[in-house]
Amino acid sequence: MKGALYGDDSPIIAFATPPGNSALTLIRCSGSTAVELAASAFSAPERLKSSPGNTVVYGWIEKSGEKIDEVLVSVFRSPKSYTGEDSLDISCHGGLIAGRAVMEALKACGFRDALPGEFTFRAFMNGKLDLTRSESVMELVSAKTDTGRRHAIGRLHGLLYDEINEIKKMLVEVLSGAEIYLDYSEDEISADADEIAGILPEQSKAQQALGRLKKLACSWQRQRIYQEGILAVIAGRPNAGKSSLFNLLLREERSIVTESPGTTRDWIEAWVSIGGIPVRLADTAGLRETLDPIEKLGVQRSREMLEEASIILYLIDGAEGITAEDRSFFTDNERQKKPVLILWNKSDIAPRNEPFPFSAYSPISVSAKTGDGLPELTKAITDAFGELPTEETANVSQAAALGTERQKNLVEAACAALEEALSLSEQNEPLDLIAPLLREAVNVLGEITGEVSTADILEEMFSRFCVGK
Amino acid sequence: MKGALYGDDSPIIAFATPPGNSALTLIRCSGSTAVELAASAFSAPERLKSSPGNTVVYGWIEKSGEKIDEVLVSVFRSPKSYTGEDSLDISCHGGLIAGRAVMEALKACGFRDALPGEFTFRAFMNGKLDLTRSESVMELVSAKTDTGRRHAIGRLHGLLYDEINEIKKMLVEVLSGAEIYLDYSEDEISADADEIAGILPEQSKAQQALGRLKKLACSWQRQRIYQEGILAVIAGRPNAGKSSLFNLLLREERSIVTESPGTTRDWIEAWVSIGGIPVRLADTAGLRETLDPIEKLGVQRSREMLEEASIILYLIDGAEGITAEDRSFFTDNERQKKPVLILWNKSDIAPRNEPFPFSAYSPISVSAKTGDGLPELTKAITDAFGELPTEETANVSQAAALGTERQKNLVEAACAALEEALSLSEQNEPLDLIAPLLREAVNVLGEITGEVSTADILEEMFSRFCVGK
Repeated sequence: MKGALYGDDSPIIAFATPPGNSALTLIRCSGSTAVELAASAFSAPERLKSSPGNTVVYGWIEKSGEKIDEVLVSVFRSPKSYTGEDSLDISCHGGLIAGRAVMEALKACGFRDALPGEFTFRAFMNGKLDLTRSESVMELVSAKTDTGRRHAIGRLHGLLYDEINEIKKMLVEVLSGAEIYLDYSEDEISADADEIAGILPEQSKAQQALGRLKKLACSWQRQRIYQEGILAVIAGRPNAGKSSLFNLLLREERSIVTESPGTTRDWIEAWVSIGGIPVRLADTAGLRETLDPIEKLGVQRSREMLEEASIILYLIDGAEGITAEDRSFFTDNERQKKPVLILWNKSDIAPRNEPFPFSAYSPISVSAKTGDGLPELTKAITDAFGELPTEETANVSQAAALGTERQKNLVEAACAALEEALSLSEQNEPLDLIAPLLREAVNVLGEITGEVSTADILEEMFSRFCVGK
Repeated sequence: MKGALYGDDSPIIAFATPPGNSALTLIRCSGSTAVELAASAFSAPERLKSSPGNTVVYGWIEKSGEKIDEVLVSVFRSPKSYTGEDSLDISCHGGLIAGRAVMEALKACGFRDALPGEFTFRAFMNGKLDLTRSESVMELVSAKTDTGRRHAIGRLHGLLYDEINEIKKMLVEVLSGAEIYLDYSEDEISADADEIAGILPEQSKAQQALGRLKKLACSWQRQRIYQEGILAVIAGRPNAGKSSLFNLLLREERSIVTESPGTTRDWIEAWVSIGGIPVRLADTAGLRETLDPIEKLGVQRSREMLEEASIILYLIDGAEGITAEDRSFFTDNERQKKPVLILWNKSDIAPRNEPFPFSAYSPISVSAKTGDGLPELTKAITDAFGELPTEETANVSQAAALGTERQKNLVEAACAALEEALSLSEQNEPLDLIAPLLREAVNVLGEITGEVSTADILEEMFSRFCVGK
């Protein structure tokens, strides 16, 4: 692997599935000589070499005459493969050992370990995927909830690519309009400066493009939340029902997004999907003044978690009413910097019947015991993070949206160039100052899809992928 | 899944690869209607339905018109599939979410969760694999070392099946010889009793078969060690170099057989492969009398580990020589019940130059610092467990050997019946007492390969497999 470079065309190999107790292990190979190389370790080399694309060949991987594993080899022929090159998917027996032995046998034939994202890199280089689709592949693989998957699938299916291209096309039209004026001005040296300065031709089209770009830029904030998730910390006095709420959310929101069960340290936490948002839900020790040194430590840790939280779910014990501890929480200004949902717990036995004395909050009545108020709680969380005012369509998977920081930075750069162009246009500045800004916006949009790219940017981008992808 | 039974023929589905951060997730389906069902969730249903076997179709899994994931579907047609039924391998995007969404979409079309081992069960029922090969599939998937894989591959390739069948054929010949005599005696009532009693016809062939069965029976002991591994506990006085030896073995014996790093409790342990044997290697607290309560607890745990150990690697600090603690270990009779290897450590600076005073042991000179003596240590461990005197061939993968307790019990039952038959024959007992014993041995051998089987036995056997296999 040392010295291997993205963009060399050596035959590459990687595990496409994780190690573990399973029926099968999948190994992927790609490269112009991939089929020939693999055939040299295969029990029926001629059959493999003569296989057309999209066929499956049964046989054994062998090494020095010894049978290593019984496998199914799917053959893909250039350009009809993921990478666009000749490729193979080798399905070996599962577990830890068989796949490893097959991998060694194949590497001995001349495959090298693939770099992270190298299969997708090749797919991009061979024109199989533009950059927005390439990035969506990685998004999809690391999706934490079904909503995250849906967003990624939208981009994989070309929603973002199409939107960027449409906007770019609009800007190219505006730009070519401007350039006709500029060409005209060059031909006709006598032309009046007023004729070529001032209002950009098709200015309304440029403004429309800007609006669509801004909407895209706004979409990132929510998309990132669906990708990365939020930390929701349950707080409140001891015995307010924090653990019951924690358990209720775990039970009701089935799609727990991690394989491993929640860890228990000084607090308990687990990932759950709330309205499609990956939520790292943490149950903290109760907040109260105490002299007991161990409890004190727990309270201290709780305060740290609250600092870190994206949102605080503050439970009030409805049966007890608002206590001094609760009051001190509400009046603490620090807290008000982040979203806080007040949950009036035990609503089944102690419904809230007085107005809430802190006007900044409107409590939600819940019962961690009966599950009452859970839909309202879910809605309050998605309102706080999930739905943005700029979002018009209800079906998120049908609206183009940004999937990576890279895309967002480029969209913002395009917005900035376009805004400046429009501003100059309104100030009646000459078109030869405005046109380069439009040209820049068009180029930046080309970078998003990868029409315009540099080796450095690509390597930086693909190296963040997982190996085998 | 409730109420699902091995042997019903409903379409089944399972994940064939483990969840985790990976490029792909593989889902397997099987059943006579599998292709039609999957087509109803596929973007190109007609293309899928008309696909011949061993081809790969590209498309999208969809649910209620929504695109769920972009997939490659490998189609296999009965009888040319793993199960012998129409089957599909669906390669989805990796990670936790995409595969789960595809699984749900397909289950909504009518697939049910496969029971553990149900794919292999169907393969057996459809005559694709005999029972020895079926069991080797599970062995292969749970192999801990490359030697374990090699043994399983031998059985998957039919080594055991062929050997059992050859032995059975010999016994059938002996039996039919005996039955000719018996038939003759029935026809000719006047026949002399001496003619049909006494030495079994082809007795030498029966003895040869017995010899081969006994060799097979012996093979299990070693095979089990390669499958299950051994616990090797490093013991010795504090500072004898136990941790250095532990680290050396971890570093040198590369093929660590578990994914997860060694756990640290009161002792440290890790799985390593020593001469192909999976060895759970444990480093214990030093053994010495102490008043410190925490150290005392450590020493107590060490003693418990020694009780549990399959083999003890006892380190003597060569620079210190044999101490009172060492002596008390050697004279402790309890210890001598299990293999103990004495390692004279620090051989690089303190070579052993006096005869070892305990004649039951012959120490191996090692240096945990330089690695001296490591090959001798590896050989001593494999001698103690790996190579049995009955094993004649050096290449383990070419000798038939037993892979499961079930096989061993049946081979022993066949041996017992055959031994009794031979013993009766030598005592000149009548052939009509001997023939049923031969018949029993033949039947028992048929059970090993599954020629003779019952639903109960099969269910019991396959339910130990993993899901998806």
